Amino acid sequence: MHSIAIMGGSGYTGVELMRLIAGHPGLELTAVSSSQFEGQPVSSVFGALEGGIDLEFVPHDAAALAGAADLVFLAVPHKAAMAATPDILKTGARLVDLSADFRIRDQATYEKWYAPHSAPELLAEAVYGLPEIYRDEIAGAKLVANPGCYVTSVLLALMPLLKAGLISPSGLIADSASGVSGAGRSAKLPLIHGEVHENFRPYGVDGHRHTPEMEQELSLAAGQEVKLTFTPHLLPMDRGILSTIYAQPAGEAGEAAVRACWQKAFGAEPFVRILPSGRLPETKQVRGTNRVQLSVATDPRSGLLKIFAALDNLTKGASGQALQNANLMLGLEETAGLTELALTP
Amino acid sequence: MHSIAIMGGSGYTGVELMRLIAGHPGLELTAVSSSQFEGQPVSSVFGALEGGIDLEFVPHDAAALAGAADLVFLAVPHKAAMAATPDILKTGARLVDLSADFRIRDQATYEKWYAPHSAPELLAEAVYGLPEIYRDEIAGAKLVANPGCYVTSVLLALMPLLKAGLISPSGLIADSASGVSGAGRSAKLPLIHGEVHENFRPYGVDGHRHTPEMEQELSLAAGQEVKLTFTPHLLPMDRGILSTIYAQPAGEAGEAAVRACWQKAFGAEPFVRILPSGRLPETKQVRGTNRVQLSVATDPRSGLLKIFAALDNLTKGASGQALQNANLMLGLEETAGLTELALTP
Amino acid sequence: MHSIAIMGGSGYTGVELMRLIAGHPGLELTAVSSSQFEGQPVSSVFGALEGGIDLEFVPHDAAALAGAADLVFLAVPHKAAMAATPDILKTGARLVDLSADFRIRDQATYEKWYAPHSAPELLAEAVYGLPEIYRDEIAGAKLVANPGCYVTSVLLALMPLLKAGLISPSGLIADSASGVSGAGRSAKLPLIHGEVHENFRPYGVDGHRHTPEMEQELSLAAGQEVKLTFTPHLLPMDRGILSTIYAQPAGEAGEAAVRACWQKAFGAEPFVRILPSGRLPETKQVRGTNRVQLSVATDPRSGLLKIFAALDNLTKGASGQALQNANLMLGLEETAGLTELALTP
Amino acid sequence: MHSIAIMGGSGYTGVELMRLIAGHPGLELTAVSSSQFEGQPVSSVFGALEGGIDLEFVPHDAAALAGAADLVFLAVPHKAAMAATPDILKTGARLVDLSADFRIRDQATYEKWYAPHSAPELLAEAVYGLPEIYRDEIAGAKLVANPGCYVTSVLLALMPLLKAGLISPSGLIADSASGVSGAGRSAKLPLIHGEVHENFRPYGVDGHRHTPEMEQELSLAAGQEVKLTFTPHLLPMDRGILSTIYAQPAGEAGEAAVRACWQKAFGAEPFVRILPSGRLPETKQVRGTNRVQLSVATDPRSGLLKIFAALDNLTKGASGQALQNANLMLGLEETAGLTELALTP
Repeated sequence: MHSIAIMGGSGYTGVELMRLIAGHPGLELTAVSSSQFEGQPVSSVFGALEGGIDLEFVPHDAAALAGAADLVFLAVPHKAAMAATPDILKTGARLVDLSADFRIRDQATYEKWYAPHSAPELLAEAVYGLPEIYRDEIAGAKLVANPGCYVTSVLLALMPLLKAGLISPSGLIADSASGVSGAGRSAKLPLIHGEVHENFRPYGVDGHRHTPEMEQELSLAAGQEVKLTFTPHLLPMDRGILSTIYAQPAGEAGEAAVRACWQKAFGAEPFVRILPSGRLPETKQVRGTNRVQLSVATDPRSGLLKIFAALDNLTKGASGQALQNANLMLGLEETAGLTELALTP
Repeated sequence: MHSIAIMGGSGYTGVELMRLIAGHPGLELTAVSSSQFEGQPVSSVFGALEGGIDLEFVPHDAAALAGAADLVFLAVPHKAAMAATPDILKTGARLVDLSADFRIRDQATYEKWYAPHSAPELLAEAVYGLPEIYRDEIAGAKLVANPGCYVTSVLLALMPLLKAGLISPSGLIADSASGVSGAGRSAKLPLIHGEVHENFRPYGVDGHRHTPEMEQELSLAAGQEVKLTFTPHLLPMDRGILSTIYAQPAGEAGEAAVRACWQKAFGAEPFVRILPSGRLPETKQVRGTNRVQLSVATDPRSGLLKIFAALDNLTKGASGQALQNANLMLGLEETAGLTELALTP
Repeated sequence: MHSIAIMGGSGYTGVELMRLIAGHPGLELTAVSSSQFEGQPVSSVFGALEGGIDLEFVPHDAAALAGAADLVFLAVPHKAAMAATPDILKTGARLVDLSADFRIRDQATYEKWYAPHSAPELLAEAVYGLPEIYRDEIAGAKLVANPGCYVTSVLLALMPLLKAGLISPSGLIADSASGVSGAGRSAKLPLIHGEVHENFRPYGVDGHRHTPEMEQELSLAAGQEVKLTFTPHLLPMDRGILSTIYAQPAGEAGEAAVRACWQKAFGAEPFVRILPSGRLPETKQVRGTNRVQLSVATDPRSGLLKIFAALDNLTKGASGQALQNANLMLGLEETAGLTELALTP
Repeated sequence: MHSIAIMGGSGYTGVELMRLIAGHPGLELTAVSSSQFEGQPVSSVFGALEGGIDLEFVPHDAAALAGAADLVFLAVPHKAAMAATPDILKTGARLVDLSADFRIRDQATYEKWYAPHSAPELLAEAVYGLPEIYRDEIAGAKLVANPGCYVTSVLLALMPLLKAGLISPSGLIADSASGVSGAGRSAKLPLIHGEVHENFRPYGVDGHRHTPEMEQELSLAAGQEVKLTFTPHLLPMDRGILSTIYAQPAGEAGEAAVRACWQKAFGAEPFVRILPSGRLPETKQVRGTNRVQLSVATDPRSGLLKIFAALDNLTKGASGQALQNANLMLGLEETAGLTELALTP
């Protein structure tokens, strides 16, 4: 059994980590911190975890958390994450950071979109935690930067296609929608039921922070700079992301070529489901799982490729992927603790 | 008081028409037909209408319905609508058809997307029922073809811009999402709660029937053929459409030019709300109303215009617009019976 | 036109009042206050009201608000309401208080459940604002205490039956459920979508503040002290209350006697719908309306009467009833501004 | 590995069984039947099961299904279940029937509520599948009748209290609400999203078929005939049942005595969570799990006990409990395949 600590256990990514760890055969959660709920039993805050996680929330103390753990998950907001990272790494513990702090390789780009970086010396060391692309690097990493939720849906759909030259790197548009849990578990007016329910709306339309992260990885895949037009929307539901992506095919590439390329890249991947022609992703089919569903159709009028990717923003889009990374880092079966299927309905 | 009949009152557009007519100061519903519920009181099928509509459903008999009415709403499916239309017009009654049967001016195009046309001689006479564009023609029309729900959101957003040459007529993409009432009130497995709730999915991705209707009107506005890439999605909610449209600005045209153009076209329109910079449409704010909300943002990376339009698929997207057309045809105040504001929440 | 002011316009009862006043033919809203949104246009906070209410929120100043109004709605929390009431009445303005401050006639009872009362001298003067029971007193009142949302559903169902001696005043149980808008528009963790959606739970089970208000009025109707067992539940929806009430019939009284009693009491009431045998209330059929639906069934095993009442907690349960009271106080048609039917779906 | 067959795999209980079996370490699904989807891959009907269940639906052939299985789950409607049962038992396979056909021990009672019984000779042999009460009998049974969803919530809450004489067997009222998946996966108008969403309503108020099943077991526990007043309601959500039960305490018994009694009866039970004083069940905390949450409060005015039980109607209320029974019958760990925790949110 490997011992695990979570710094920041009161948000939705924190509780999702705990849920998954409770069902993992090779991990034991030894400590979880929260400033808001310090001293309270986890199960009094999250009734669903009763009997699964028998701990009390402890204060945020990076060194103490890391001292008792083989691996630490950072589920605190950006800035808090980079502040804690050096102390954690000093203890020798491995670290998966769910915040954005180590996702952007270029310090200036990070600082333009987020804030001054307090540990830039670690940027080069951090490995981008998308196992389907960077599996080997993740296995040997000390510090893994877990990708954003929207980002994962777009990168898995597009990176193999850009690498293979099947789509044009210019003119890419990602029109995405997310369930509201992506905005976290906090008492904010726009998140209350009356504002979300039976409503659908775009937001962040002139620059969402996931854009530079997507562009960084897409550019690496394309071997040239990629600019992405990205529009997020808020769905009246708890969980799920669907990205509908518009891409210009390169040359004669069509649906079949796209599926063949995905098949080559992901055919052996446990969590990537390439849907057959005519089937389209549905967020409910991946809800609560670490899966991503991919599909593609050619628009008969414009010839554009319509590429679809669905995942659960809290699982493959956050905590499930973090656990997948941890499994790799600890030498465990990559799918351990991540094999649940979605509920129907 | 003008007398009104509805052919096809058992679907969601039928009941929405009845709701609006019940609150209209100058209209009286004299008959409503349904094959499914023939002989039953309307209020036993639609409890919400109790006390508002005190009629029983009668059989589908076009001539009989029209004989007792100044104006008939056709809320039956396509094919049934064109079958009934000649009989209704013969009585001298005006007619607003909510089906697709008279929306497409070109018979061959209609027949490619739908079915053989049984009354093609009426296609030239039918007026496309988008009052903000065709107000004068509607006022004098015998037969008005009420636009599709997705269509209305896209046309109101784009037609003035294409007419003014502010956006390129090529490369237009409309990424739209609709509440499930757009699929009607029928006992179909994909419509049951367990399949819709907490789910989001694309559909009709290789050709939705609203495409030719959008292209017809966009081409007229642009003065040249327009091809549109259109992707509909199904939302886990009852009512509401949001269209997010990607357009290449022509020359230096930016957000301000778009807003100015809309202002010129729609500044006096009672049902078009042009949102100020920074505010984006929300379906809940127009729910149950005849309003459409428009807004626009420039993508800072690609320079593409992101154009947003929200409406209620059953009101401005169907029955509300049909009533707006009827008001014009009958010489009534255009806004009569259509002034309700959306509930919050 | 009568001029109206609202003190406390930023909550859901406030915005519901504004929505209804915007559609009222005889009322004009002259001022609305909010400490949170002072100085902001109403339509920037509530997009749905754009074009309907063209005001900016002003500070809470009871005298100033009342000075410019024939009638003031108090939509502030209890305590704030009683603090403002004397200043408002001094100006000569009529007042409808949506808080609990003047609902309980007995000061000690009020203070046991709420807080020390700062204006007890007004308790005797206040009229309980249930028009179906106290219509005449309301018409002449200076100060009307608008009933609670759960309360209205229970009182309309039971008061005529208790007066007529058709049910036993002992052993009454009201099992009620409400949409989450009943908890107000505030940024609290238990109200966010992730906590409410796809969840159903009881709360306040050892004493909800609506209990003494129900017992007061039920006791008046029964002519003896009535104790009520009341259990509220939270529904995963925005609007709607359903109360399922268990009562012991007196003697041989059955369903027919209950319906006849309601018919006698409410047959001419514009907002009470007595459903025929076999039809049961549905919250969606009264959503956004001022209606209450009543029905009854006899349990074949126990002989208990099951009595059902449905209403919209924000309309007949709060702001709609407040407007109904205002209509009576101002000598207007009682149904003015309150005739909308519920959306289907 | 034990081989399992499911007769009736196209409904929600069928797909829930498949989901759970896919994650079970000791069971292998060898065949699943459906008349509606015969010949189609399971994963084309239930996308969520892709990769978990790699079978095609076969025709309903009881003997063939049973011939290849150690145990058969019957997830077909009543009548179809009793028709298939003798053929299955003849093969020597064990059987868990999720229908009502063998739940009622008294043939006349069954036939009064359901239909003529075609295999009454098996009624005496069938064991009622509530493991917390009948664990030993289930382990040795050939034929287990899996309890109804509402029933499980009421029986687990009340049976120990009645056995211990802590509550009066007369005057019991169960006011229950269920998510809509309890009505099955079928194309019926009352189940479509537009009819269910944002709606709450009672149904079956003058006699729901779960009543005789509850009364049978409650009477056994009480040692005398128990009559129950039961009112089901439909919730606007997919999954979850909450029962709020009103009971007269016997003598001085209060909350603490109830909790102690439950603790004695269920303290070692893996799936029964007795909540501490002040915490109340929430359906979301048990969603998708085999758990039931229990709590109790004393009404301070009437002295009545308010007893609360929450479970997932498809898991502990149907397929999860069926799997728990199968585990017992096959000599497996009772919790095998049933340890998942609920998602938050």
